[in-house]
Amino acid sequence: MKGRNAFYAQSGGVTAVINASACGVIETARKHPDKISKVYAGLNGIVGALTEELVDTSIETDADIAKLRYTPAGAFGSCRLKLADPQVDSRGFERLIDVFRAHDIGYFFYNGGGDSADTCFKVSQLSTLMGYPVQAIHVPKTIDNDLPLTDNCPGFGSVAKYVAVSTLEASFDVRAMSKTSTRIFVFEVMGRHAGWIAAAGGLAMDYGIPVVILFPEIEFNEEKFLARVDENVRRFGYCTVVVSEGCKYPNGEFIADQGARDVFGHAHLGGAAPILANMIRNKLGHPFHWAVANYLQRAARHLASAVDVQHAYELGCAAVNLALEGCNSVMPTIERVSDAPYQYRIGMADLKNVANVEKHMPMSFISDDGFGITEACRHYLLPLIQGEDYPPYGSNGLPQYITLKNELVPRKLPPFQIA
Amino acid sequence: MKGRNAFYAQSGGVTAVINASACGVIETARKHPDKISKVYAGLNGIVGALTEELVDTSIETDADIAKLRYTPAGAFGSCRLKLADPQVDSRGFERLIDVFRAHDIGYFFYNGGGDSADTCFKVSQLSTLMGYPVQAIHVPKTIDNDLPLTDNCPGFGSVAKYVAVSTLEASFDVRAMSKTSTRIFVFEVMGRHAGWIAAAGGLAMDYGIPVVILFPEIEFNEEKFLARVDENVRRFGYCTVVVSEGCKYPNGEFIADQGARDVFGHAHLGGAAPILANMIRNKLGHPFHWAVANYLQRAARHLASAVDVQHAYELGCAAVNLALEGCNSVMPTIERVSDAPYQYRIGMADLKNVANVEKHMPMSFISDDGFGITEACRHYLLPLIQGEDYPPYGSNGLPQYITLKNELVPRKLPPFQIA
Repeated sequence: MKGRNAFYAQSGGVTAVINASACGVIETARKHPDKISKVYAGLNGIVGALTEELVDTSIETDADIAKLRYTPAGAFGSCRLKLADPQVDSRGFERLIDVFRAHDIGYFFYNGGGDSADTCFKVSQLSTLMGYPVQAIHVPKTIDNDLPLTDNCPGFGSVAKYVAVSTLEASFDVRAMSKTSTRIFVFEVMGRHAGWIAAAGGLAMDYGIPVVILFPEIEFNEEKFLARVDENVRRFGYCTVVVSEGCKYPNGEFIADQGARDVFGHAHLGGAAPILANMIRNKLGHPFHWAVANYLQRAARHLASAVDVQHAYELGCAAVNLALEGCNSVMPTIERVSDAPYQYRIGMADLKNVANVEKHMPMSFISDDGFGITEACRHYLLPLIQGEDYPPYGSNGLPQYITLKNELVPRKLPPFQIA
Repeated sequence: MKGRNAFYAQSGGVTAVINASACGVIETARKHPDKISKVYAGLNGIVGALTEELVDTSIETDADIAKLRYTPAGAFGSCRLKLADPQVDSRGFERLIDVFRAHDIGYFFYNGGGDSADTCFKVSQLSTLMGYPVQAIHVPKTIDNDLPLTDNCPGFGSVAKYVAVSTLEASFDVRAMSKTSTRIFVFEVMGRHAGWIAAAGGLAMDYGIPVVILFPEIEFNEEKFLARVDENVRRFGYCTVVVSEGCKYPNGEFIADQGARDVFGHAHLGGAAPILANMIRNKLGHPFHWAVANYLQRAARHLASAVDVQHAYELGCAAVNLALEGCNSVMPTIERVSDAPYQYRIGMADLKNVANVEKHMPMSFISDDGFGITEACRHYLLPLIQGEDYPPYGSNGLPQYITLKNELVPRKLPPFQIA
């Protein structure tokens, strides 16, 4: 007996390990051909479901699917597209169900963050209402680490490792240069609403490095900031600043605001580092260098955390196993059992409790002065950056990342115009 | 019989592998106590020689010295200080010789780029004139890859690997996002005068990625640049731009000029990426992300090229061996024997032929359209990014980089004021 087909899509900003989840989904599905016939992937995420651009992953060899585990970014393409609220305009969800019906899709695996958890939840509800029940399972992913009910989100641990290592390395550089030239290194990292990623820079303090962190959770106070930087330069000869892109003035204005907007109308951030660096030079006179890692940090599969890769892979596998057990409208989660040694188990959350809930960084993770991390934060972060999971390198000296064939299944429906 | 002491100093911008050269110098010297008693290192480079702040490396264990091989940045501190021309003001060089004499220093190993090669050359000449002959050996180092008479400069290969891998990873990210959001990734890399580092971004084209490179060697032409970017977006859906910080308009103005100057009066560069990204959005309308790697690229020991590390280490060893053979005023070099398989031998150059000579990137390495690299360039670069030489990681998930004790030898001379 052949099973029904599954649909898998990647959503939102891609990460160093989202393809490890795809790998887990596809490999696990392949073990159960009686239950799951083929896994179709959305070309460019949910867009591919709407436009009926379904990638046939069954033509890929097991060896190539295994390579997804160490290939960064989204192998099938992702998208930033939030379907309209079905109570306002149900055409998008109806089209999804039409496509699922046309291609005998009984399982929907949606790999993303908060928005996609909400979409996944709605698919499970609406498909039942529409008389074509689909088991919808959300596979968590977001470097922002802001999904509730899971200890952490795949993608975050690898960014944290990248930021911690990069902060350490650049700080060693500044320290070496500080006698006659650079005394300040300002490193801008991602995190629009939460300081999870910036917090990882604090791990470099293990090496005695003076790090000043600027969190989005703490209103930026120029005077206090400059005083702290200057104190570090006087004491240590240099200072490293790790600034979250979402760091704001008390009036709510981003330090980094460039005036640009993304497709959701969010401010397009980037550029807090040069602004702070110039502020330090103008007010304190210290020579500086600055860096903005941007995509480098979330694409850095070459430095992925082994724990994070494992989480991503296991959650992909778990999603399929939950579906096979008959679950619907759920998300597999990471449940931390202990910090040291780090132990976890795979849990499960109802999507109705995940959708539209944002997990914030606890204020107890930020030190009293607002510029550092606490021991509680350190204990939380350390397990997530453990281990290295290096990709294989080829004769060209570069990682052997895979680009799949991404062949599409023939269309069965008339075209659809995305609103 | 105990030998005379050696003085080792790091100069200019530090790199991911300059400490591997230090490791080679110290380990090789330790094998010949009859010839070289102790290796003193300049605290903060040549500044430490002038101020008589000499680090006693002999108190460090063999195990800790071995860790230098995988520790980035300058373990003893570096500096940007060019001694005055002795024909104008000889006090600096005289002080050096005084300090060498006071501490029985018979060997001077200077680890740096073009300026330090010149200083090293002058030390060998003046010490003889002053009746205190010192064997001065230059150990090449510079990410700029601009020293003559050596196939490449330690530090460059690792930056090239970092830039190639980062370009590849970020491009996979943009490719995955390009359907509904980011279509342009602008990546700014170092290289004030030469495009060696930017050229490494071209290696990502192995993966079918559309990369547009902006070299300092090619006058920036906005119209041609935008046309090429737009063409890539139409053909591939996205485009990656790798821009050298030294990229200039035809009038000689840096794209990135921030108006700041470094201690030598050079323009303090950084910021070409956001300027280009905004130019693309304003003229072509494509959504963008950008990154400026800055120190991250030259400190990224976590991704060092194994070939580069080996070169750096061997050149440190070779410098000591040349000194023991009685050489003076020379620099050990890398002589390439063949590209594939890559074979090289350690050669030697006279410092009088190295000092004040800058090696440019051959124009034959840049494609006719000015935006890419040629096969000749690829053949040159590939051997230099071969192999990974990962540092060991600790229980904190971070590389176990060493910070040495850096204890100073007691002073014997009155203080000296650096001009």
